[in-house]
Amino acid sequence: MQLAVEHEILSYLIAPDPTAPRLTRVVEGVDHDGKATQISVVEERPLTIFLNGQEIVTAMTIGDYPEYLAVGFLRNQGMLADDEIVQGVDYDEELETVVVRTDGQTTYEEKLKKKTRTSGCAVGTVFGDMMEGLEGVTLPDLPVKTSDLYTLAAQINRTPSLYLEAGAIHGTVLCQGDRPLVYMEDVGRHNAVDKIAGWMHMEGVTASDKLLYTTGRLTSEMVIKTAMMGIPALASRSGFTAWGVEIAREVGLTLIGRMRGKRFVCLAGEERLTRDADPDAVGEEDRKHRRKSAETASHDSA
Amino acid sequence: MQLAVEHEILSYLIAPDPTAPRLTRVVEGVDHDGKATQISVVEERPLTIFLNGQEIVTAMTIGDYPEYLAVGFLRNQGMLADDEIVQGVDYDEELETVVVRTDGQTTYEEKLKKKTRTSGCAVGTVFGDMMEGLEGVTLPDLPVKTSDLYTLAAQINRTPSLYLEAGAIHGTVLCQGDRPLVYMEDVGRHNAVDKIAGWMHMEGVTASDKLLYTTGRLTSEMVIKTAMMGIPALASRSGFTAWGVEIAREVGLTLIGRMRGKRFVCLAGEERLTRDADPDAVGEEDRKHRRKSAETASHDSA
Repeated sequence: MQLAVEHEILSYLIAPDPTAPRLTRVVEGVDHDGKATQISVVEERPLTIFLNGQEIVTAMTIGDYPEYLAVGFLRNQGMLADDEIVQGVDYDEELETVVVRTDGQTTYEEKLKKKTRTSGCAVGTVFGDMMEGLEGVTLPDLPVKTSDLYTLAAQINRTPSLYLEAGAIHGTVLCQGDRPLVYMEDVGRHNAVDKIAGWMHMEGVTASDKLLYTTGRLTSEMVIKTAMMGIPALASRSGFTAWGVEIAREVGLTLIGRMRGKRFVCLAGEERLTRDADPDAVGEEDRKHRRKSAETASHDSA
Repeated sequence: MQLAVEHEILSYLIAPDPTAPRLTRVVEGVDHDGKATQISVVEERPLTIFLNGQEIVTAMTIGDYPEYLAVGFLRNQGMLADDEIVQGVDYDEELETVVVRTDGQTTYEEKLKKKTRTSGCAVGTVFGDMMEGLEGVTLPDLPVKTSDLYTLAAQINRTPSLYLEAGAIHGTVLCQGDRPLVYMEDVGRHNAVDKIAGWMHMEGVTASDKLLYTTGRLTSEMVIKTAMMGIPALASRSGFTAWGVEIAREVGLTLIGRMRGKRFVCLAGEERLTRDADPDAVGEEDRKHRRKSAETASHDSA
């Protein structure tokens, strides 16, 4: 596989670091021929997120950018409002905890206390709150050029990543126009997108002119998170679920899936697509340039 | 693609039903050439699981076998003990709830009440309880023939499924020897395996002579669930995480990943493999017979 050239990688604000020692480990095994083999596998560790004095969730994560993950998770769950000031984020590597401190008690904490007294579990609440947070959301109109989509996909697929190094991981990339800006990876289902949300919140980044590219499926949760972030376009190599499509149409999210080579399907926001590229000039994905997944991975999933 | 012949499909006790109207939906979209297109996408709906009077979790599921999903989830979380008698499982399609009733108050309910009073959220507890449930677990020694692995993979890949119909879904198959018995699919990360756990518990099926085949990654959660079910072998088309490998080695689970055509890697339990097949006689996966994923899906994931 021909990887991206240096100036392409330099154009990222944050790119994956496949050589980081804490993120992968070499494990000994035996292959189909009975030969001893060594393979690189991704790490996976628990991280417990606290909001002020309240334990919220234990996420399974690869372990990079724990502060962004915590803030992004809380944002995407609607537990941290737009105007709420994050006063500090304390990560403790040994305890595997991260505490997000805000000014004063949040509404969410009140809600959680009330809820847990009656029904005992926050998971339902969390989900309910996410849907609640979407009420009245209408995303800004953002024209999406198909030429940008093709440029982004080609560049992202060739970017050195933990996925190319070890597999078994998800990637999500925040993009603007034809430029990928922040590329996060994680073993956990939606951690990659939460890390991007955390980065955007901490850095005060505008969402209205961005597009999110993901390797995972376009499920309801993925669509809700993107809408909660205020990002008006979401593209993926993978497929759709019916509810993901429904929500995208409701909130005005441009939803593009099954992007492979020249092919894609747009299931929401077709009217915002500017078809300025000739698909036949793009051609099929070259076998050598396909993500490793296309040959060695299995499922269309998030 | 050449699908499995009828007698192969009849050998399943439960096989996927890709024609079931409630599980997929046809959605209108536009393709890369600007042509209107219709694609089949999987459904995704919330299901709230109760244990007696206690709300436990809201899972996102495709919606088939809600009773098995509920019982299996509770089993795999260690909330339903081996000797606990399930007195009833009531599914309400309209309310999207399923209530599992047992004889008396479970320990888990006590724990949850105590826990939620102090830290407010059950998610951490659930995870902690799973690891706790694994303490002292040693799986039975089960020899695994490589000839069986090849036979299973070939048959499962050719079985008509929601995956082949609509993509964006996970599959898990309970197997015995060279025979796939129960093939469950779901959009939700671990719902497919939970549905198998529920089926086994309700039907009183022995675990010690079974193998679990999954399309998803071999993460810690997948390995823990398999061990909680008492199943001594786990095989996947996808890759590994470091912690998944570690736990498999601790509990004596035979762990095989990256199964494609003749290739696979065994990272735990190599001493229990009986290498009775010549990999070169299996050959590479024929392009036509590969799962759709290999060509159109993206990520190695669960």
